[in-house]
Amino acid sequence: MAGQTSIKEFIGNSKLHEKIMTADEAALFVKPGMIVGFSGFTPSGYPKVLPMALAKRAEHEGPIPITVWSGASVGPELDEELVRTGCMKRRFPYQTNDALRKGINGGEIQFADIHLSHCAQNLRYGFYGHMDLAVIEALEITEDGGIVPTTSVGNCNAFIEMADRVIVEINTVQPRGLKGIHDIYSLENPPHRKPIPIANVQDRIGTTALPCPPEKIVAIVHSGVQDSQRPLAPVDEVSEKMASNLIDFLSMEVKAGRLPKELLPLQSGVGNIANAVLVGLSEWPTDGLTVYTEVLQDAVFDLLDKGKISFASSTALTPSPDAAAKYYPRLDDFKNRIVLRPQEISNHPELIRRLGVIAMNTAVEVDVYGHVNSTMAGGTKMLNGIGGSGDFARNAYLTAFLCPSTSGKGKISKVVPFCSHVDHTEHDVDIIVTENGIADLRGLSPRERSAEIVSKCCHADYRELLRDYVKRAETGGGHEPHILAEAFSWHERLKNNGTMMP
Amino acid sequence: MAGQTSIKEFIGNSKLHEKIMTADEAALFVKPGMIVGFSGFTPSGYPKVLPMALAKRAEHEGPIPITVWSGASVGPELDEELVRTGCMKRRFPYQTNDALRKGINGGEIQFADIHLSHCAQNLRYGFYGHMDLAVIEALEITEDGGIVPTTSVGNCNAFIEMADRVIVEINTVQPRGLKGIHDIYSLENPPHRKPIPIANVQDRIGTTALPCPPEKIVAIVHSGVQDSQRPLAPVDEVSEKMASNLIDFLSMEVKAGRLPKELLPLQSGVGNIANAVLVGLSEWPTDGLTVYTEVLQDAVFDLLDKGKISFASSTALTPSPDAAAKYYPRLDDFKNRIVLRPQEISNHPELIRRLGVIAMNTAVEVDVYGHVNSTMAGGTKMLNGIGGSGDFARNAYLTAFLCPSTSGKGKISKVVPFCSHVDHTEHDVDIIVTENGIADLRGLSPRERSAEIVSKCCHADYRELLRDYVKRAETGGGHEPHILAEAFSWHERLKNNGTMMP
Repeated sequence: MAGQTSIKEFIGNSKLHEKIMTADEAALFVKPGMIVGFSGFTPSGYPKVLPMALAKRAEHEGPIPITVWSGASVGPELDEELVRTGCMKRRFPYQTNDALRKGINGGEIQFADIHLSHCAQNLRYGFYGHMDLAVIEALEITEDGGIVPTTSVGNCNAFIEMADRVIVEINTVQPRGLKGIHDIYSLENPPHRKPIPIANVQDRIGTTALPCPPEKIVAIVHSGVQDSQRPLAPVDEVSEKMASNLIDFLSMEVKAGRLPKELLPLQSGVGNIANAVLVGLSEWPTDGLTVYTEVLQDAVFDLLDKGKISFASSTALTPSPDAAAKYYPRLDDFKNRIVLRPQEISNHPELIRRLGVIAMNTAVEVDVYGHVNSTMAGGTKMLNGIGGSGDFARNAYLTAFLCPSTSGKGKISKVVPFCSHVDHTEHDVDIIVTENGIADLRGLSPRERSAEIVSKCCHADYRELLRDYVKRAETGGGHEPHILAEAFSWHERLKNNGTMMP
Repeated sequence: MAGQTSIKEFIGNSKLHEKIMTADEAALFVKPGMIVGFSGFTPSGYPKVLPMALAKRAEHEGPIPITVWSGASVGPELDEELVRTGCMKRRFPYQTNDALRKGINGGEIQFADIHLSHCAQNLRYGFYGHMDLAVIEALEITEDGGIVPTTSVGNCNAFIEMADRVIVEINTVQPRGLKGIHDIYSLENPPHRKPIPIANVQDRIGTTALPCPPEKIVAIVHSGVQDSQRPLAPVDEVSEKMASNLIDFLSMEVKAGRLPKELLPLQSGVGNIANAVLVGLSEWPTDGLTVYTEVLQDAVFDLLDKGKISFASSTALTPSPDAAAKYYPRLDDFKNRIVLRPQEISNHPELIRRLGVIAMNTAVEVDVYGHVNSTMAGGTKMLNGIGGSGDFARNAYLTAFLCPSTSGKGKISKVVPFCSHVDHTEHDVDIIVTENGIADLRGLSPRERSAEIVSKCCHADYRELLRDYVKRAETGGGHEPHILAEAFSWHERLKNNGTMMP
């Protein structure tokens, strides 16, 4: 079998050559009821052939229901295939797949929406049961048995440490230039934890491969399947406006002496809005920007290439297909300016707080007092999950949430009386950005916050309606005035009439 | 003037003797519009005579409106007096005073409810304006000008660093044994922050006095007024039940190997329920318990005295009058087993996460999916504030919220369909404890959470009602099923009919 021969050169420890097998053979290690940890973070570096082989097996044998852990979202070869074949019983901690989302919202798949920085430690604490198997996509296995990850680190280190057995998927089409980009460092459990010795985004504190006792490795399979990269939409006018509002605000903060001119390390969520902000920073007057985040999208590669960003720390690379084609062959040029860390490090409160990260994340909706919904449509339907937004928002130097003021062709106001689901509380939100402007909530009381949010962020079409709600609520008194009987009336109208507009 | 002479012996730096004056004279340093930082944390170690003199001045001159910062709640000499005389324009970050609460809920006093660990850094970042004056209660001023705090540290270090001027209130009735108990350590702003070198609750990393350039000190006044200590209610049956439920749970965690037998550092909120949990731990089978928290109440003194607790770290001592009478004269016995730190250290995410704190806080209400309201009655009326609950809950090893299943003689269910205000999200809550039982939410999906909370935590009188809500909501589908039109119907009933019961 060609695959078996061809991957030997990527396995430095020759004793492990005997573990090379087909994905179909390796898939037999998966038993019903198992908890399985897969590598992968925001469709990068996840196993592809093993899950597809498992799905094929399930097509013949019937469902092999398992609990699936990952770093964050993974590609369709895993999430979609395991849902399609009835193998996905339980899923942690984040996803972006339509089929999976449907199963979660239908109540057939149990999904626990946890902070990305909590996954590894809660697994180590034993809070979520014992991990049976880890399946890790790798660039190669080193002579001393270290597993070199590919385009993400995610929870790999914790999965390998906690799982009884490990299956490695050697991916021979991932860029070879990834070798050396990773910095693997694991945390002890309390009471044995020590300070994490990172004081600057570029500090390297660990190893370039994932330590793994060779006897844990039960199978090594060959993969030639690329990450399921998603194209980025071109930056639209609304996103551009949000980005420019935020950048104007940052400029004013620099002028006021509240930020250094090269800013502080930037974090931005995944997707088009986040990317637009970073695109906008290409005009920032000072070089030497830095990034401390969980995913690197196109704009970061572009700004590294230009020299605008001097260093980027992350747990995953998530370029669009175009950016991957452009930059992956040149990874050696970037390797001393990018580091990929385990997500318990990239998202760790200790480091986010110490480095003074500027956190920029996308909101599903915000309310008049600055609470933020990041996860749930209409308070009930899971979209993707909280991801790392809580890790960053809660611990950042400055916490910004961005959203357009409306969606659904104006039928949905993203600024509502009361968030239908709260993922980030008023205590954690510094500024809210829409295409209309910025609400600077720092140090304001709720009454002052609502005035700021209504006038700066709300769409003109909904402004008077929202102002009227606040005004009537205020006649009832209270620190944070509400009319509970009307608090969700906008969501109700949307549900019943297809629009929040009365 | 007797006061002027008698406090000289408490001022080691003789050049400062000329700054001794009456409180009336010192109060003249306060100008309308100033931002003033007062020492004090959960009525301990706050200035008394200066605020009273300011109130007296306002009685004659009319209101001198100022912004008042503190560590947390302070006594009536400050909060009540300044509200009564119209001097309290804006207040951060926590309070427990009736008059102040009334002003906040009436919208006359602007109150920003921020995490206690955020105060000092946001002040240093310049997010809340420039601090004009710091007023610090002190035990003494050392030869090199260091200010020795009294029964709390709170934000004193940051206030002294950031304020233009400092007024010191030498309190000669605070216990002399406090000297040496404090450990003052301040944080740099990013990008210059370093790891905080604490790896164990007992680690001392700073100085025993607050550094202060002598030229900043513009007045020194004498105070002979005690902290306004509050008596603790005797532990009632419901609190005892909650405590025993929680302690049973901790025992099971030890048995399961998920906690060491001497547990991990304990944090508990302020008040009777928190105290009851610690009282319950006097029967814990193993000595060597530790505490990493923000206030030390009676039970901690008792358990230190018994040897059950080996070390306690905090930012304030808050004994009841009885416990103060018993233990304050014996502080020298405890000094090597208690440390008082700035609140940016006692409540720092980095340390809470590193040490693996067990966080036990009181909820105002919880909902069927595990969101927690800590601050607001009926979603609108501020009670006290979030305090440190968010700092601890978000970063703890294990996050518990406790509340009785009902209040108001059964007319209020503390377990509701949807929290009328969310301070802690489902992502942050591990277990919920009522007198009926414990809901262990770790790793559960929302549908599993609601089943657990309804059956374990809810009062029997409300159980079927809540189960019915959940069941009907589930027919509508969604990851976290809700009927938004009914979500606040229980609160509406309470408002309209005086009971949540239909």
